[in-house]
Amino acid sequence: MPSLPTPSAQDVYSKMRDLHWSPKEKTIARRAFDRALHRELEATIREAKQRAARIKEPDELWELERYLTRRRKEIDAKYEFKYSVLLLVLADLVRKGCINLDELHGLGEEKLRIIRDHVAAA
Amino acid sequence: MPSLPTPSAQDVYSKMRDLHWSPKEKTIARRAFDRALHRELEATIREAKQRAARIKEPDELWELERYLTRRRKEIDAKYEFKYSVLLLVLADLVRKGCINLDELHGLGEEKLRIIRDHVAAA
Repeated sequence: MPSLPTPSAQDVYSKMRDLHWSPKEKTIARRAFDRALHRELEATIREAKQRAARIKEPDELWELERYLTRRRKEIDAKYEFKYSVLLLVLADLVRKGCINLDELHGLGEEKLRIIRDHVAAA
Repeated sequence: MPSLPTPSAQDVYSKMRDLHWSPKEKTIARRAFDRALHRELEATIREAKQRAARIKEPDELWELERYLTRRRKEIDAKYEFKYSVLLLVLADLVRKGCINLDELHGLGEEKLRIIRDHVAAA
């Protein structure tokens, strides 16, 4: 779960719970989320292939294992699709460069403001 | 630890504990053990490279992770260099085709008999 800027953490969570998501907004959010996840997985596949191709010593084999375990846990933690926290998840993805704000074009102004506030505050 | 044929398990263990290893025998056993471990690690590196090169989908990435974890645990369990159980470890490696009996040429007859008995009984 992404970290929240204080002091309004409680406010943001209860505000997010009360937000209504239109079908169009759900589609936009889901698409941006899925694209980011897809890009991150593709990048991890490329990196794993490169690391494997470079292996010469057994130690590097177990290093590849640790790399994959770490990436799996990071990706699991980062990509949580639940509407109650989705704006913060999207904001985190924007902040980390996984999603471009343009990809969220079409979300309601209040939602975009929460995302922008969280990006700026992080 | 390798499994032992009953009913003489206790006998074999106490017999092994009492065996004396000459410096020459230690060298022979260590060399055969190290060569087998080296071959197994090399084969695992080759297999990991091939699996990585074939990856197209994210699922195959985590499959590679599981493969590496499994191989690491198998290799850890299989290669235990302790003189108190070494003959059974070597016998297991012979049985699995990781060591050729010829590589153990030079060990005392009693040691070779314990190895051969264990290979035959398994």
